[in-house]
This record gives sequence, structure tokens and C-alpha cells, in this order.
Amino acid sequence: MKAQILNAIRAVYDSVPLVHSITNFVVMQVSANALLAAHASPLMAHAVEEMDDLTDIDAALVLNIGTLDPAWLESMELAGSLMKKKGKPVVLDPVGAGASGLRTRSALRLLDTVRPDILRGNASEIMALAAEIRSADKVTTKGVDSRNSSDEALDSARALAERFGCAVSVSGERDVMTDGRSSLVVEGGSPLMPLVTGMGCSASAVTGAYAAVCPDRLIAAAAAMAVMASAGEKAGARAKGPGSFLPAFLDELYLLDPEDAASRVRVLEA
Amino acid sequence: MKAQILNAIRAVYDSVPLVHSITNFVVMQVSANALLAAHASPLMAHAVEEMDDLTDIDAALVLNIGTLDPAWLESMELAGSLMKKKGKPVVLDPVGAGASGLRTRSALRLLDTVRPDILRGNASEIMALAAEIRSADKVTTKGVDSRNSSDEALDSARALAERFGCAVSVSGERDVMTDGRSSLVVEGGSPLMPLVTGMGCSASAVTGAYAAVCPDRLIAAAAAMAVMASAGEKAGARAKGPGSFLPAFLDELYLLDPEDAASRVRVLEA
Amino acid sequence: MKAQILNAIRAVYDSVPLVHSITNFVVMQVSANALLAAHASPLMAHAVEEMDDLTDIDAALVLNIGTLDPAWLESMELAGSLMKKKGKPVVLDPVGAGASGLRTRSALRLLDTVRPDILRGNASEIMALAAEIRSADKVTTKGVDSRNSSDEALDSARALAERFGCAVSVSGERDVMTDGRSSLVVEGGSPLMPLVTGMGCSASAVTGAYAAVCPDRLIAAAAAMAVMASAGEKAGARAKGPGSFLPAFLDELYLLDPEDAASRVRVLEA
Repeated sequence: MKAQILNAIRAVYDSVPLVHSITNFVVMQVSANALLAAHASPLMAHAVEEMDDLTDIDAALVLNIGTLDPAWLESMELAGSLMKKKGKPVVLDPVGAGASGLRTRSALRLLDTVRPDILRGNASEIMALAAEIRSADKVTTKGVDSRNSSDEALDSARALAERFGCAVSVSGERDVMTDGRSSLVVEGGSPLMPLVTGMGCSASAVTGAYAAVCPDRLIAAAAAMAVMASAGEKAGARAKGPGSFLPAFLDELYLLDPEDAASRVRVLEA
Repeated sequence: MKAQILNAIRAVYDSVPLVHSITNFVVMQVSANALLAAHASPLMAHAVEEMDDLTDIDAALVLNIGTLDPAWLESMELAGSLMKKKGKPVVLDPVGAGASGLRTRSALRLLDTVRPDILRGNASEIMALAAEIRSADKVTTKGVDSRNSSDEALDSARALAERFGCAVSVSGERDVMTDGRSSLVVEGGSPLMPLVTGMGCSASAVTGAYAAVCPDRLIAAAAAMAVMASAGEKAGARAKGPGSFLPAFLDELYLLDPEDAASRVRVLEA
Repeated sequence: MKAQILNAIRAVYDSVPLVHSITNFVVMQVSANALLAAHASPLMAHAVEEMDDLTDIDAALVLNIGTLDPAWLESMELAGSLMKKKGKPVVLDPVGAGASGLRTRSALRLLDTVRPDILRGNASEIMALAAEIRSADKVTTKGVDSRNSSDEALDSARALAERFGCAVSVSGERDVMTDGRSSLVVEGGSPLMPLVTGMGCSASAVTGAYAAVCPDRLIAAAAAMAVMASAGEKAGARAKGPGSFLPAFLDELYLLDPEDAASRVRVLEA
């Protein structure tokens, strides 16, 4: 496991993958800075008129529905479909799925039409999406009441991974990721991370960088979260509060100790 | 007064209110970070398709016309009207009112149709809006020449408070707020604050958090500005310039001394 | 040369020019903060409905096609044309020209219809645009293979300067700028600058501030890059990585030593 994570980190550093994000307005700057600090290259563009050209040069695409509207959804579908046609990886962050019908439906639509390689969200989002497909399948669901249980999120992640043929990466106090068969866990980070906007979206962006270089989607998902966890934990130790955390986090992402990151990943079930 | 401000601060900390902003592109990140640091929870969304769902879970709504266009104005009107129908508070920041006819008209339209609970702007914006309604009312106005006079801004604030039945909160070297009858003043802050983009917009976002927990609009407005003034003054003492001010400000907002904040509010007229 | 740069810096400090940007979503916050730190005043607005009003008060306009779509392009053309009609300077940053047909065509269209005073980009963008006009002119081109050669970029810059009657400012390890006849070079900066998103876009924004006060476009372009290079070099010495670089950079921009900045400009060819 550790060797696979180290190989993935080395591959990002060697290739500096171009990660194209169609993401929300709130996190564009921090996501771009996280990609640069993580030794990748960011590109943000949403015009349908340039999607064919850009997907030619993109190494990975990250779709994030944080400040969604119908016009942007159309760009996401087009870009996602072009990437898959060109054999390149797509990551979906279903920000706010469960909070509005538009977000839940849009995330499911993108899962269904684009077939992303990795679905990356928090426990609530993953559980809301799983509840929706279970309900549509007339399967009994326990609902989304126990939102904070990572075991419940893991069940939901497995269900989504099986249904859409993707890896699912769930962030939380500890991060879990599954491809429906095997599951991994990543430990680390800082309690300051949820107090800084865009940390989850940056995790999705960095997941794009790892998906670009790593054909094993589960390893890509774990390597990205390990890198975030390692940098986050070191930044948390330096920071006085959430304001000084962000610059410290970007520094630590850039100065990453690959050994420390790789040692944070464990097999949960094989 | 001090006890009321302390109660408001405690109420925000206890409930971590979900503050929905429809705001400008420039300040989305800093506003979200300010809300998180101030112990509230940010949500940014503008699609009309999800306004009914989101206003069900929002604790307050903040409208900010900083990078306005007609499509966003439509979202703001819809979201504002839904919030008022659901009995929840709305804050309006009329960014740039007076600088263009579109902004002045849009701010007045939102004041008229949505009836926000708190109007929060700088002296120039408040005076431009007041001049506009005085002119429409055929009342003689001294114009907006003496833009920097806080007394003139207080007169304008009173006129707007009476006309639209809201509290009006005016930021400046010292902040003043009025509900048309009583007026308060808040002292503190740092000369570096106007050199960082989004400080005023963050004040409006934090005002939303306080409006969510505090039925007295004047107290909500004063508590929010007191929190900003306290954090700003401490950050100013730590910062080397406007760059290091922002992380320091978010740290100090998070580490707030409620006593210090509460002691900054005084009655100007009762 | 040094005296001219010092005069330009003094003129910005004295007049605090209002720089209107129609720019990309990723860099709006950092560009606004860079303008404030550089003793200018930022305005971001894209609605066609307010372009006539705003161009009345703008001291300069900066167009940046980083997250372009057709609606924003229309705003850029309108705002650019209004500024030129009102005798005020326009700067164009052709972000990503060469990466998609939309961007290359849009940049050339803005060059042709608006006639910006200064075109400010990186070597790849300038060479892609020059290759396009050479190709349209049936002139033999060496192509854009040697993207990193600053000499090649200078040739391209000269060709664009002559064709569109503007100054062209090219950022890189050392920055070069030309009006087609004379060329200048600016040295300084930090290897951390390309690891922070929006540094190039901020350079374009600051170029707008200098264009507002300085009728000699070549001097304006050089003064802006000299200010960036001086602040960048000092920030690089203080920073631990790209995260701590950005606050340090904004501090140093604010605390600028004009003598240090001015000493960085040299004549390359007269």
C-alpha cells in the first residue's frame, strides 16, 4: 500500500498534471492554489465553446456543483462526456447534495450520464445520494438521520460505487474510500480544516491530480486524501486559528513529506 | 447594552446559524471564511431552481449587489421574498449604490420588494440611497457632496430606516446603526481593514449570522460590527500590512474575546 | 529611466486610481487585494447595463479572459469601446490564448475592436497570438514550439505591438516589454510567484493602475512589473512556501520601496 501511494505522489511530481475544474465560485482561488502547491497545474473554464479544445489538453477533469446553475450543469455534462470519450478521468464533488432537490438530482444526473471515475464528498452528501438511489430502487433505507456515522457513510459509499462503477471517497474526521470491493482509510488532518472554506473542494481538485496519473482509482483517491491529511496535520500544528491555517496548509502541501503522507493509508477491508 | 451583545454572541456560538449569501464573486471566499471563523455556517447559491429548498434550511439570507447582473437580481428577489414569507431575516448590502444607476435602482428595488431587516453599507452608499428617495419624494436634499461625514450618513440612515422599516448599519472609522428611533455606535477596527477586499461584505455576512439569532435588529447589527471591530483591532496590531492582516483577522474572529467586543458598543441616541 | 518609474509610482500613490476589472472568477479576490496594496482602488463589474455609468468614473479598465464565456466577452467589448471613446486606457490579459480557439479568437477580437493600450501576458500567450496573426498574414512562422524562449517572445511582442499599436508586456523569469520600437526589461521576483494563482492577473491589474496615471504606455507597463518584481522578491525571501508567499507579497506591495522597484528596469533596445 505504502509503495503504491509513494509511486502515485512521485508520478504527480514528475508529470505536473493539468487539472481542469468546473467548480464553484467560492473555492476557485483556493482550489487553484491547492493544485499548484500539490505540484499540479490548474485550469478553470466553463464555456461550452472551448470544451472540446480544453479536454484535448486536460489530464483530468473535476466537476463540483457548489454554486450550480443550469448553464454550468450543461458545461459539466459536456466536458465530462468529452473526457470519458477521450479516455481521461473525471472526479465529481456533489457539494450540497441533499440540501436541495436541484443538487441531488444534478449529482445523480452527472453520475449517470458522465460516469465519473471518483465520487468525492462528505458523509452527508454521500448518504443523501445513496438514500436517493435506494429509494428509487424501492430498497428500504434507514434514512439520513445518522449523518455523522462513518460506518453508515461507508455503506452508502459502497452502494454508490457498485451502482455507478466508480470509487467513492468520503472525507471526515477520518477519510474512507471504497471501490465497492476494497476499502481504505486515511487518518490525519486538523480540526481547523472544516473551518476553512474550500478544503473539501481542494481535496477533490487534488484527487483529480492523482486520478490523472494513477489508473487504480482507489489508490488515486487514497493518495490525494493522504496528501491533504499530512499537510493539514502539520499546518494545524503551526496555525493560530483558521486564518493562519490556510497559508500554512498551502506551504505544507508544497513541502510535503511523501513518507508521512503514505504512512497514513491503511486497508479497511480487502 | 453589553449584556444584550454578549447574549447575541452566545446565541451565535450555540446555534452556528446557516447563513445563505447571494453575493459578489470577489468576496465569496473571504465572506465564507469570515462566517466560519465567526462560528456560523456559510452557504452560497444563486440558482432560482433551488431557492425554495434552500430557504427552508437557511437561518438568514444576505444579499450583496457587488457584481450584480439582471439574472442574479432575479435570484435575490426570489430568495428574499421566500425568506420573508418564511419569517426569516434578510440583510442587504448595497455595494456600489450611487456608482451606477443599475446599482442604485437595484438596491432600492430590493429594499422595496423584499423589505430586508437590515441594510448594511458604507457612508457613500447609504447617502446615495437616501438622496435618491428624498429626490423622488421632492424633499430638498443637501446632495452627496459631503460623503465622508458620519453625521450626514446617520441622517440618511434614519431616513432609510423610517422609509423601509429596517435597521441601517453604516461602516466607517466608527460604525453607526439606527432603527430610525435609537442609534448605536461601535468603535474599533484597524486602518488596514479598507485595504483588504471584502471586509465590508464580510461585515454584512456576519450581520446575517447575528440577525439569525437576535430578533432585535439594532442589537444584531451592533453585535456583528462589534465582533468585526474587536477582531480587526487585534489583527491590526499583529499585521505587517494588508496581506498578513487577513489571516490574522480570521484568527482573531475565531478566537474572539466576547467581553472586548461587547464593550465597544455605546448608545448614541435612545 | 529610473526617474520616470519613480514619477509613475508617485502618481499612483497620489491619485489612487480606480481600476475597473472585467476578469476571471479565480483571481478576482487576489487582483482586488493587489490593487489595494498597490495604492489603487479596485472595481469589479460585468453587467452591460452599468458599463456607461462605470466607465465615466473608471481611471483604467483591465480585461482578462481567464474564465471567458460569450456573455462576458460582450461586456468586455462594450466596456473597452466606451473607455477608448472616453479617452481612457485599457489593458488586455489574454489568459490561456493558444489553449483553446475561443480564447485565441476572443483575444484577437478584443485587440482588433477595442485596441487596448497594453497587452500583458506570458510568453506562451503572446507567442500564440503572434503566430495566429502571422499565419493569417501568410508570413512564415517558426511556430510556438520554443515556448520558453524570451527572445522568441520578444519578437512576437514586437509583431503584436506593431500590428495593434499597443505596448506588449511579457512576464517570465525576467519580464520584457516593448512598444514595437523601444524595449525594456525588468528583473526580480521569486520562483514562488508561478506557484500562486493570480500573480499574472494581478500584474495586469496593477498595469491598469499605472496606465491610468502614465501616458507613456511602455513606462506604465515597466513600472507595474517593477513594482511586482520588487514586492515578489522581498516576499519570496520571507515566505516558507506558496501559502505564506501571498500574504507576504501583499504586505511588500503595500510597503514598497520605490527606489528598489525603479532600479529593476533597464533599457533592452532604444
